[in-house]
Amino acid sequence: MGNLYIGLLHFPIKNRRGEIVATALTSLDVHDIARTSHTYGVATYFVVTPLPSQQDIAWKIVGFWTEGEEAEQRSRRGEALEIIHVAADLDETVQIISEAEGQRPLLVGTSARTADANYAKYIPYEELTTKILQSHCPIYILFGTGWGMSEELIATCDFLLPPIRPDALFNHLSVRAAVAITLDRLLGDQNQ
Amino acid sequence: MGNLYIGLLHFPIKNRRGEIVATALTSLDVHDIARTSHTYGVATYFVVTPLPSQQDIAWKIVGFWTEGEEAEQRSRRGEALEIIHVAADLDETVQIISEAEGQRPLLVGTSARTADANYAKYIPYEELTTKILQSHCPIYILFGTGWGMSEELIATCDFLLPPIRPDALFNHLSVRAAVAITLDRLLGDQNQ
Repeated sequence: MGNLYIGLLHFPIKNRRGEIVATALTSLDVHDIARTSHTYGVATYFVVTPLPSQQDIAWKIVGFWTEGEEAEQRSRRGEALEIIHVAADLDETVQIISEAEGQRPLLVGTSARTADANYAKYIPYEELTTKILQSHCPIYILFGTGWGMSEELIATCDFLLPPIRPDALFNHLSVRAAVAITLDRLLGDQNQ
Repeated sequence: MGNLYIGLLHFPIKNRRGEIVATALTSLDVHDIARTSHTYGVATYFVVTPLPSQQDIAWKIVGFWTEGEEAEQRSRRGEALEIIHVAADLDETVQIISEAEGQRPLLVGTSARTADANYAKYIPYEELTTKILQSHCPIYILFGTGWGMSEELIATCDFLLPPIRPDALFNHLSVRAAVAITLDRLLGDQNQ
């Protein structure tokens, strides 16, 4: 599954008041999502933040587990973190994928909210599965942090995956859980 | 979905050398799994540890978000944590469910490893879904921490869910991701 990429975006993100902000990196987002991504055969997991200090922190987390003493002792944690690439913005990651694959990836957004404006972009999970397994086009799935990706960011996506449990009375999954559920809905036990 | 319960067990658990230990509580296991459980309509999420100091920590995490100032300010985080019950051992939790439901729950184990000894206990996800949605029997799904539930613990289960992506070259999901994937495989967008 060389053609599947995911990105965790820390900008441009909405905060609880709907303002556009850069969210802070969460160490466990780096770890958990790397482990999940590697289990589902994701080629690269991009951690995207425009703040150099936050990029440093992300690289340090990766380096701690992939270089030196910890890397040898802590079994296979480092192997998962090796699929991480820290980048400044979405454009940079699209550029990296385009150069590696020889073509621009399909950009697939995710959101916990249903919005009329986005219905036209919805792609059923099984349809995206077919694209992942049968087309040679790189597929790049984006996940927001904070209170979600900005509308402008969603507008740049080619497709949008429908929200998970949109009608639940309570629907506040962590992004770590959302990534796990999304990858499992797309691939399940396929392509191991 | 009053009949679905989950438990996160910190004892008896295997460590990386296969020894039986009590693992330490992870704060984010409390939060993430509560949010996921509440999103999927789980009745009670049991955090199970025999160590009184660890039980105190768990109750403090719950109390911080469900009582006082934070509870009012931090939107709906407290609502998810209210489904948590901290208990000393599996028996205590089975007792609580039995009293609430008027019958003993079906115990369903989970494991990342395939083992010949357990094949007879495997229940397909869709079969367990039917039990959850159509029978009135309480269903109690157990998740291990550390390197997984002890064999003795698995032996006491009525059923065992098949491992997630058992043939993946790398298969090291966090328990937070495993809970999210398991609940989504069982319920998806049903019963919201």
